[in-house]
Amino acid sequence: MADGVVTPPADLGREFARRDGFMRHLGIKLHDVGSGTSELRMAVQSCHINFNGTCHGGALYALADSAFGFASNSHGILAAGIDTHMTYHVGVSEGEVLVAKAQEKSRSRRIAVYQVEILNSAGTLVAGFTGTVYITTRPNTGQDAVAS
Amino acid sequence: MADGVVTPPADLGREFARRDGFMRHLGIKLHDVGSGTSELRMAVQSCHINFNGTCHGGALYALADSAFGFASNSHGILAAGIDTHMTYHVGVSEGEVLVAKAQEKSRSRRIAVYQVEILNSAGTLVAGFTGTVYITTRPNTGQDAVAS
Amino acid sequence: MADGVVTPPADLGREFARRDGFMRHLGIKLHDVGSGTSELRMAVQSCHINFNGTCHGGALYALADSAFGFASNSHGILAAGIDTHMTYHVGVSEGEVLVAKAQEKSRSRRIAVYQVEILNSAGTLVAGFTGTVYITTRPNTGQDAVAS
Amino acid sequence: MADGVVTPPADLGREFARRDGFMRHLGIKLHDVGSGTSELRMAVQSCHINFNGTCHGGALYALADSAFGFASNSHGILAAGIDTHMTYHVGVSEGEVLVAKAQEKSRSRRIAVYQVEILNSAGTLVAGFTGTVYITTRPNTGQDAVAS
Repeated sequence: MADGVVTPPADLGREFARRDGFMRHLGIKLHDVGSGTSELRMAVQSCHINFNGTCHGGALYALADSAFGFASNSHGILAAGIDTHMTYHVGVSEGEVLVAKAQEKSRSRRIAVYQVEILNSAGTLVAGFTGTVYITTRPNTGQDAVAS
Repeated sequence: MADGVVTPPADLGREFARRDGFMRHLGIKLHDVGSGTSELRMAVQSCHINFNGTCHGGALYALADSAFGFASNSHGILAAGIDTHMTYHVGVSEGEVLVAKAQEKSRSRRIAVYQVEILNSAGTLVAGFTGTVYITTRPNTGQDAVAS
Repeated sequence: MADGVVTPPADLGREFARRDGFMRHLGIKLHDVGSGTSELRMAVQSCHINFNGTCHGGALYALADSAFGFASNSHGILAAGIDTHMTYHVGVSEGEVLVAKAQEKSRSRRIAVYQVEILNSAGTLVAGFTGTVYITTRPNTGQDAVAS
Repeated sequence: MADGVVTPPADLGREFARRDGFMRHLGIKLHDVGSGTSELRMAVQSCHINFNGTCHGGALYALADSAFGFASNSHGILAAGIDTHMTYHVGVSEGEVLVAKAQEKSRSRRIAVYQVEILNSAGTLVAGFTGTVYITTRPNTGQDAVAS
């Protein structure tokens, strides 16, 4: 099989979401996944709050990183995150509903770069994220466990 | 009160950990906190696993970011994360016990920079993290809620 | 004077460019500067080439970082870069003409975040950049030396 | 030839430095290169100064990125920078002499991560840098032009 030419099944995103224990544990919901894009949502609850009483930076990151994972694996080839950068702009409180939108900025044979923006209900950009993946040679179609 | 001269109570770290719902939800344990340093641990469980069957990058980040939060707030002044960078070196599996060690690299009146390293049980560096905080003028002694 | 309300002179960008020895040394040209935005250009010459025969990552960064500096100082208040992140997508050769476009993603009282994209003549995104500044209380109108 | 087993010639670093027009243009000097490490120096001159009268962030980065390039190519295999992060801690003035020390933090078959610290004459950490490379399959021994 040539690199990168796998046609992923139409329900690849749903299959990924079904298998992802971390997303489920944090209440991160898949809303949409396309070719190199994704949209995920998270309602901020008490389990996301840090010792200062606001949404933990790690919870915002978990949302962004999950969006990055869906977008970068949307082509049906296993892609592994190697490097990420996040900027935090505005504090987030319990009860807010956040949307993360990922898009592909660049994709070569082995390396691809994605940007994710997290918006709150008012449409304010609360955080920005850039992530780079290493593209493996293994298909990742949601049908075969990676470890098999 | 002059900036940065608050003497934090000896049990500041424990008080922070007690208040942090996100850490508790992910099983992140405080092991030690010093002046500009911290050490936290996390045993990788099924709630940390991603759709590829390995530890989610967001779970590793949550551990590193929490260590960053303890180290940067250890001086008793509220510090807010504004920017972070993470590199992922080695995959992590369920059952591994991870240690995150944070140290202060630089601290001026308003900005401070921390590095965190995550090691697995074998002592291998599985991820590296750099984070920058903005140092506010508010004391954060664990006795007063920030929002009060 | 209240923070952030300085009205910069219309020719602020030209004055900055006139004073900047590093830009001049590398052949970086100011094309446009607006409120929170800038556009700079650089023709890749032999002085930008690394030991592998392609444009040095530091030369691409110098272009992006300069665009970041103009955009973040465009409001007439001295802003100091504290943290930057760059992704390299496509190699660049001698003779190519690069354009860097900066835009403000977020600005609070003390912290602001900018993104810069570098495009080659074909319009391909060759590198992406995110930078954070600390906004000081000092006006920076191009008329007064900072050190004075 | 197996990946990564090239034995680079002893004078690889000097050969790289001889070919690097960007380093020469900025007065960056190679001091030492080892297996996954390097040390470079730069005396801050008027050609490094920005519009605020201090050393340009791009000049500090050029020094760090060059140290990253020597360390990551020290094994005799061409490595291409894909992602970098820099934190700026202390302003730097004309006349200061800076030292950049790079070290390898992680190296797998295709990806490696390096940290660089820039110190001023007083030994103060003025900036920190983390960079990731993609390791190609091409030898880079300083004897053959990459383009050949």
